[in-house]
Amino acid sequence: MRRYSIASIPGDGIGREVVPAAIAVLTAAAAKCGFVLEFRHFDWSCQTYLKTGKMMPDDGLDRLRDHDAVFLGAVGFPGVPDHISLWGLLLPIRREFEQYVNLRPVRLLPGIASPLRDKARGDIDFWVVRENSEGEYSQIGGRTGTGENEIVVQQAIFTRRGTDRILRYAFDFARRSGRRHVTSATKSNGLYHSMPFWDERFAAIGAEYPDVAADQYHVDILAARFVMSPERFNVVVGSNLFGDILSDLGPGITGTIAVAPSANLNPERRFPSMFEPVHGSAPDIAGQGIANPIGQIWSGAMMLEHLGEAEPAALVMRALETALIAPDIARTPDLGGNGTTAGFAQAVRNTLLGL
Amino acid sequence: MRRYSIASIPGDGIGREVVPAAIAVLTAAAAKCGFVLEFRHFDWSCQTYLKTGKMMPDDGLDRLRDHDAVFLGAVGFPGVPDHISLWGLLLPIRREFEQYVNLRPVRLLPGIASPLRDKARGDIDFWVVRENSEGEYSQIGGRTGTGENEIVVQQAIFTRRGTDRILRYAFDFARRSGRRHVTSATKSNGLYHSMPFWDERFAAIGAEYPDVAADQYHVDILAARFVMSPERFNVVVGSNLFGDILSDLGPGITGTIAVAPSANLNPERRFPSMFEPVHGSAPDIAGQGIANPIGQIWSGAMMLEHLGEAEPAALVMRALETALIAPDIARTPDLGGNGTTAGFAQAVRNTLLGL
Ligand SMILES: CC(C)[C@H](C(=O)O)[C@@H](O)C(=O)O
Ligand SMILES: CC(C)[C@H](C(=O)O)[C@@H](O)C(=O)O
Repeated sequence: MRRYSIASIPGDGIGREVVPAAIAVLTAAAAKCGFVLEFRHFDWSCQTYLKTGKMMPDDGLDRLRDHDAVFLGAVGFPGVPDHISLWGLLLPIRREFEQYVNLRPVRLLPGIASPLRDKARGDIDFWVVRENSEGEYSQIGGRTGTGENEIVVQQAIFTRRGTDRILRYAFDFARRSGRRHVTSATKSNGLYHSMPFWDERFAAIGAEYPDVAADQYHVDILAARFVMSPERFNVVVGSNLFGDILSDLGPGITGTIAVAPSANLNPERRFPSMFEPVHGSAPDIAGQGIANPIGQIWSGAMMLEHLGEAEPAALVMRALETALIAPDIARTPDLGGNGTTAGFAQAVRNTLLGL
Repeated sequence: MRRYSIASIPGDGIGREVVPAAIAVLTAAAAKCGFVLEFRHFDWSCQTYLKTGKMMPDDGLDRLRDHDAVFLGAVGFPGVPDHISLWGLLLPIRREFEQYVNLRPVRLLPGIASPLRDKARGDIDFWVVRENSEGEYSQIGGRTGTGENEIVVQQAIFTRRGTDRILRYAFDFARRSGRRHVTSATKSNGLYHSMPFWDERFAAIGAEYPDVAADQYHVDILAARFVMSPERFNVVVGSNLFGDILSDLGPGITGTIAVAPSANLNPERRFPSMFEPVHGSAPDIAGQGIANPIGQIWSGAMMLEHLGEAEPAALVMRALETALIAPDIARTPDLGGNGTTAGFAQAVRNTLLGL
């Protein structure tokens, strides 16, 4: 029987609720399709930090290394500064495992209305391909001077290697998916060094893909266009920061970021890839059992797909979409229902088993 | 009679069309209210660059210095790289004249539908206060290495002085405008040095304004919230880059960025402030006389307000809003009409003279 070993890191806040809920769905898909998902749980979180001064043990990355994938909930909680928690857990995993692609679908689900007037399913259906390992997210820089004279320097680093590989991934993905149109997010009118370089590489890599249409917008107007004409996008590629912003805005136009998944991919498969929802730990509703598990379940479907289990992945999505429009299945409060995290996930699981 | 000397820089593309159109409206307001606007025109643009290798003459800034305000159209055109044109004209003016505030209203106008379902006038009505002189927009950095090994460094510089003054402006503005709620755009979970500093200063300055509510969101989720719940914002303060993105996204949710104005303010009035629409030079429609002049006209109203002419400023806005819903006035094609730039502006002018 096919077996996959998955490192699960529920992390903080609602991560601790949606991860087990999603695992219930995924193990059902595995059972139905005749393979085994072995989850090993790692209890690393802001709690860990408050107890030990570290988000994960010193050999944390090594402990993850031999798994087929990492399934992560959310990182960050009040009481620990965000830059400490994220640079202590999430970001090192992305970097150490060269998960240089963050792939995020932006797609309207059935039964969830877009906040945009007149947009129905099919009108919003594109992918954000985000650079995930360098760029604006950098620990280089610091503070100098004191008091009134203090100055803070923050460096962004763009390597040719890092830029080319994400652009090439975007074009390959566009070709592979049959959506032969890549849009680049830039800001070369304001960011003097980094973005003209980004544009140069986009033009150079684009030239290798004459069968894929390419265009680019400054990120400010691109954000506005997500709202005004989302139907014109197929694959949108952006730097770490721009991809981050656009891949939250995208789910925003699909009604809620609670449903959005992401895949942190090491395309060469030298290291495990990581799957996590776009949403955070939501301290405001954590502990109540009412968090929406859809982003986590959908992330799980992307994980199955990545493991080569395309059919079970499709099954999970079909079950999810069926459950979303079933009149007798209670959705979570953020979607206007009175259901619970576990209850909704169980319903998806039952739906899946009945498909 | 009160006289104001205004430096007008139409710049590129549709800037050359909307600036004269707006001036026709503003001079009518001046005539009606008994003061004089003396416009001096500066023909600086990408054309200038192609002819002379410079966007403006070496003493360009000095020539502007003695005016009461600068009225700018748009800068940037295909044929000149964006970072050349913008760092050769727009950005030096903002910096040299310490226009460290970029103030941008986000407000639904009558007769223009929001792309957001169920949002009517009043639901979208807030201000973006953007840092306008430092931060991510920096020429410090560069390239090193060649070919496959090339690395590009882009520095962002945040000074305590620059950060404090924009935050203080935002809180003062919130207090003055009676909208006692400031939201900060941050990204302190990813941007390791700059944004934790920004948050620290936001907390420190906010403490000086106990009567103004303060909250903060990471810019990614903030962008999504602009779409999902715009009614919760009053004053949103952001760094140069975040403010840029949010102040295009904001107008996006009001239907079109063509109508959005901005004020580049030197609050101390040591130097002239500059007024320009949020939109760019729109090369795709330039030269056809169909560009929407509303962003430029509204920018002109903000200029009058800044000059101390509050009543004429209000008159311009009233004329604009009246014209927008008049059944016999043709709007420009971007608003679904068959009107022209000059025709619509003339109609606003006539409406104003009749008020
Ligand atoms: C043209 C560009 C440099 C400018 C900016 O980013 O500041 C524009 O987008 C704006 O918002 O005024
Ligand atoms: C938590 C944060 C560091 C992270 C990011 O910015 O990458 C998150 O927003 C995301 O999009 O995965």
